[in-house]
Amino acid sequence: MKKPLIAPSILSADFARLGEDTAKALAAGGDVVHFDVMDNHYVPNLTMGPMVLKALRDYGITVPIDVHLMVKPVDRLIPDFASAGASFITFHPEASEHVDRTLQLIKEHGCKAGLVFNPATSLSYLDYVMDKLDIVLLMSVNPGFGGQSFIPSTLDKLRAARKRIDQCGYDIRLEVDGGVKVENIAEIAAAGADMFVAGSAIFGHSDYKQVIEKMRTELEKSRHGSFH
Amino acid sequence: MKKPLIAPSILSADFARLGEDTAKALAAGGDVVHFDVMDNHYVPNLTMGPMVLKALRDYGITVPIDVHLMVKPVDRLIPDFASAGASFITFHPEASEHVDRTLQLIKEHGCKAGLVFNPATSLSYLDYVMDKLDIVLLMSVNPGFGGQSFIPSTLDKLRAARKRIDQCGYDIRLEVDGGVKVENIAEIAAAGADMFVAGSAIFGHSDYKQVIEKMRTELEKSRHGSFH
Amino acid sequence: MKKPLIAPSILSADFARLGEDTAKALAAGGDVVHFDVMDNHYVPNLTMGPMVLKALRDYGITVPIDVHLMVKPVDRLIPDFASAGASFITFHPEASEHVDRTLQLIKEHGCKAGLVFNPATSLSYLDYVMDKLDIVLLMSVNPGFGGQSFIPSTLDKLRAARKRIDQCGYDIRLEVDGGVKVENIAEIAAAGADMFVAGSAIFGHSDYKQVIEKMRTELEKSRHGSFH
Amino acid sequence: MKKPLIAPSILSADFARLGEDTAKALAAGGDVVHFDVMDNHYVPNLTMGPMVLKALRDYGITVPIDVHLMVKPVDRLIPDFASAGASFITFHPEASEHVDRTLQLIKEHGCKAGLVFNPATSLSYLDYVMDKLDIVLLMSVNPGFGGQSFIPSTLDKLRAARKRIDQCGYDIRLEVDGGVKVENIAEIAAAGADMFVAGSAIFGHSDYKQVIEKMRTELEKSRHGSFH
Amino acid sequence: MKKPLIAPSILSADFARLGEDTAKALAAGGDVVHFDVMDNHYVPNLTMGPMVLKALRDYGITVPIDVHLMVKPVDRLIPDFASAGASFITFHPEASEHVDRTLQLIKEHGCKAGLVFNPATSLSYLDYVMDKLDIVLLMSVNPGFGGQSFIPSTLDKLRAARKRIDQCGYDIRLEVDGGVKVENIAEIAAAGADMFVAGSAIFGHSDYKQVIEKMRTELEKSRHGSFH
Amino acid sequence: MKKPLIAPSILSADFARLGEDTAKALAAGGDVVHFDVMDNHYVPNLTMGPMVLKALRDYGITVPIDVHLMVKPVDRLIPDFASAGASFITFHPEASEHVDRTLQLIKEHGCKAGLVFNPATSLSYLDYVMDKLDIVLLMSVNPGFGGQSFIPSTLDKLRAARKRIDQCGYDIRLEVDGGVKVENIAEIAAAGADMFVAGSAIFGHSDYKQVIEKMRTELEKSRHGSFH
Repeated sequence: MKKPLIAPSILSADFARLGEDTAKALAAGGDVVHFDVMDNHYVPNLTMGPMVLKALRDYGITVPIDVHLMVKPVDRLIPDFASAGASFITFHPEASEHVDRTLQLIKEHGCKAGLVFNPATSLSYLDYVMDKLDIVLLMSVNPGFGGQSFIPSTLDKLRAARKRIDQCGYDIRLEVDGGVKVENIAEIAAAGADMFVAGSAIFGHSDYKQVIEKMRTELEKSRHGSFH
Repeated sequence: MKKPLIAPSILSADFARLGEDTAKALAAGGDVVHFDVMDNHYVPNLTMGPMVLKALRDYGITVPIDVHLMVKPVDRLIPDFASAGASFITFHPEASEHVDRTLQLIKEHGCKAGLVFNPATSLSYLDYVMDKLDIVLLMSVNPGFGGQSFIPSTLDKLRAARKRIDQCGYDIRLEVDGGVKVENIAEIAAAGADMFVAGSAIFGHSDYKQVIEKMRTELEKSRHGSFH
Repeated sequence: MKKPLIAPSILSADFARLGEDTAKALAAGGDVVHFDVMDNHYVPNLTMGPMVLKALRDYGITVPIDVHLMVKPVDRLIPDFASAGASFITFHPEASEHVDRTLQLIKEHGCKAGLVFNPATSLSYLDYVMDKLDIVLLMSVNPGFGGQSFIPSTLDKLRAARKRIDQCGYDIRLEVDGGVKVENIAEIAAAGADMFVAGSAIFGHSDYKQVIEKMRTELEKSRHGSFH
Repeated sequence: MKKPLIAPSILSADFARLGEDTAKALAAGGDVVHFDVMDNHYVPNLTMGPMVLKALRDYGITVPIDVHLMVKPVDRLIPDFASAGASFITFHPEASEHVDRTLQLIKEHGCKAGLVFNPATSLSYLDYVMDKLDIVLLMSVNPGFGGQSFIPSTLDKLRAARKRIDQCGYDIRLEVDGGVKVENIAEIAAAGADMFVAGSAIFGHSDYKQVIEKMRTELEKSRHGSFH
Repeated sequence: MKKPLIAPSILSADFARLGEDTAKALAAGGDVVHFDVMDNHYVPNLTMGPMVLKALRDYGITVPIDVHLMVKPVDRLIPDFASAGASFITFHPEASEHVDRTLQLIKEHGCKAGLVFNPATSLSYLDYVMDKLDIVLLMSVNPGFGGQSFIPSTLDKLRAARKRIDQCGYDIRLEVDGGVKVENIAEIAAAGADMFVAGSAIFGHSDYKQVIEKMRTELEKSRHGSFH
Repeated sequence: MKKPLIAPSILSADFARLGEDTAKALAAGGDVVHFDVMDNHYVPNLTMGPMVLKALRDYGITVPIDVHLMVKPVDRLIPDFASAGASFITFHPEASEHVDRTLQLIKEHGCKAGLVFNPATSLSYLDYVMDKLDIVLLMSVNPGFGGQSFIPSTLDKLRAARKRIDQCGYDIRLEVDGGVKVENIAEIAAAGADMFVAGSAIFGHSDYKQVIEKMRTELEKSRHGSFH
């Protein structure tokens, strides 16, 4: 099992002070910046584009930036995000006519590539692309809609995805996004996730460090079998 | 003729310090914040959504915010931008099936409404809506594409739009966006514009105040007939 | 000036007793059945298709049926409505890539053809098709949205359309739809309309005959110059 | 095994006398009204919208109304059908970007929710949503196209769906639509269906009661093992 | 008035011997190759792409090739056609969100640029782009549909377009496409056209040379005022 | 195991001499003409339509022509290709809303029907249509993009498809397209393919006959177990 990574989702950060707020979450223990891109077509919301990512790099953010594209179609934005400084780029397989091609395109632009699964999306999209994946992201809420909590059936789906990853032998992260918090992170980790997106759980709290440390403590418990 | 307004376009500001950079441009003399929304469908770029606007209001920006929607379709985003704090909302008539309805929708949500004209778009879209407009925005570059300069035929189009506005008797701003700078602002004002968007001309300069003051000086010349 | 026609819009009729309610409106003096087709794409509502029209013909409705297509794209539905028994078929020029072709298609299927203009749509769509039109329909509300009243600028637009029709020399009806009622029908007729759609004004009233007779009385006034 | 339900599909009823014809099919033994909504985009036909459903409720139809949405996208129409009086709302998973979200939306509006499977659609769409389903509808013809008969491979698919339903432990109806008639209903029931849509089989017959009674007799045979 | 150009449309040529048949039409007196691209979206037909054009260049065709894009959207194909050897590229203004930008794109790729007008399309799309045009193409039939003859109202439209061209002072060809033949070419030239597309009129005839010579004779008559 | 078929893909032939070049590849041993249709929507390229196919039939090509539709939507083109002379028509299941219906449509027009699988597409689309298939085509490169080589994971997918075909008992060809050449054809055949598309491998070589003969020799080796 890999070292678990915590990815603060800056969709919940202060956009008037994005550099500072992001740096604060990283100083508090965040490993990766999670960057949610919505285009008001694939999801009913519009968030932020490549020039915001570039500003973070110019500000001095050097950790990996994990770009989750909730857009359709996908391909046109990939070169822009890659040149702006993305590290990972993930997309929804339903949003690309040519999934294999999109994965290759991400890699040709020097980024790590992944697929994102909506809560109801079948894992059969994994059948013929495991050798091209660096990350599998399972949504535990519906992307683009507010005020949701962790969907319990994600736990079974995490176990199924974990099994596929372990069996294929490739080096692939299993990420989860939606409703992750101190109270459930151990259970989610026990189901197989090793990368955890957290937005309001971190940025909605007055002390980012305290939240992330509690998450780490919970993750430790899970790793040492004290969960269950 | 109304007092000319200068609208710094924050698309050229520093997105890692957006509150601070915007405030600086306003302190330097900007009248209105120009806010460019692109959805990667109506134009080939994706910029920023309602939560960025809201962050500026929460930061303390109180001047009017002028939202230019380069999106298609238009209607779904209007309530979101209105509740985030938009003052003006403008859209492209080609991007809405129901232009009159979209103008009404903007007003029902408490904002001022306007139409934006691409460089090649006919002014005939104005024929039956002058009574519902607070602003007419002429693009003097193609929206969503980088590295362009002011398209000269915009001057004739400004004169035609100015004539329509003066004849209709309604209180309507005539705004121009694209390639406006100290060197051409007087000529543009002489053609009839009374609201001027400037992005890199301001944010790309080390001293915002100096640029805006020079623009004001040029505008004064134009008003006092010393232009021509 | 042609004899004015009153067209009850069955969108406001009782859909559980559509044959009976339609027949009642015709017996009360309606000249033409107005049939509004919405597809939830061109407008945000879905109403009724060809099999409803066919049922009216089978029920014994023999007056002309005037089908207003608020759909996009247009062409695929035309043969279906023609064979179901449509008399007129009108569509929005923005909803067809090939306006001249769509007009021809309607005629090839044995129906009379027309264009519909949204409140903000320019009459320039009439420039090269007058020889192919049997009807011009001006919307005086935004189609597909509820609870609206007659948009006053329609009167000027009616005058402009009337002038075009009179100058071209072709036999073309000028229809108006949206917020027409006893109180304003004379004014609308004076502006040039000779075909009047009325939905809730008729079907929302307990006595259809009384409403239509009052409309006729108002139309007579308008014709005899007692309006103004 | 639940009590089998027979759902007359009013797409085959007389639209000029829809209230009366629907009531007649219910008096003849129909349990549920099946209501087919087509938008001329997801399928090449346009049928009827929420105001038709509302008219049936106003007429006095009180049994459950089962709305099958053959539309794309899906979400915008759900509140309209719910407030018009729908009991069940089913949709095609390929027609919604966010299947889990759409299921939740239906439930938030007080209706029961289901997925519909085209003849060639894989049952893998069921993998992660069984806990959110009240109904699974298998199409045994292609929706939106006329003159088809029952596709035999539906029987195997019904058996597979029945197995998934029985194993999951949730209370879910298994509905079938397309070419169901007296001659094959027992075989279809034996394959696992417990809700049967019938359109022309009922409305195309002079005596609705006789058809429905024969169907019940066949269903009884199937239940008591006399089928096979 | 410029020397009139005759442009054989290879859509009517023999696609099994396209090089030879094209060369034959040029040897018979054709000035320019007219190349019709349809994508089955903007028009209901699919014809040929850049690799066909390239094969003609490789075969040794050196005269200008005039590419008429009946596609939507437009921009993605422009670089491909330019590098395949196109001389002119024309497109329909309704098919591009950004008409001015598309014209610039064509020129940046080294081709001459033009707009095409469907029979019903208003000439108001010319209002602000005359300085960017090398060609204006008026369709005298509906593009993408077979078996049509020259639409008479095109003559008035040609006169209106001719007037705009003459008044603007730019060097712009006025092309016409659809139903042009020996019998009507003089009349069409008299209305202002100076570039004539002919497909079946040439390729459907056993002697290309004879047809083109007759067309030239007619054009001479028209030039010397003997028409009318 | 059926006799293996070699299908020269004329996308790599000389489009200026298409009849001659195609006939040459057939004389050199090709069994079937492979015909790639791209619409610049489902894939980013536009190639050739029905009139090119018809020209080949008129030229005297009598072997089966295998049309691979890389278009979306699919149905409208099927009658056109069938009447132009297509033998097989295959399409991508993601590109049709109604896969079963599209398969039936192909057969109603007298052609054999098949599904095409992109490299990442799950074979679950086969679950309920085996009785309607004459051909299954696995893409071993991403369609519509140039310069790719055979994707190795196609071998496993071929084995899985072969197993499904053998188990179902229907007479179905298993075709492969992308990067097939003399060096790998034996291995591909061993994985289960019995129909081999080859474009540049044949047309890019100076001696078509030599290539095809070498392919046959390799296929013989594979059949006689000398592969592995």
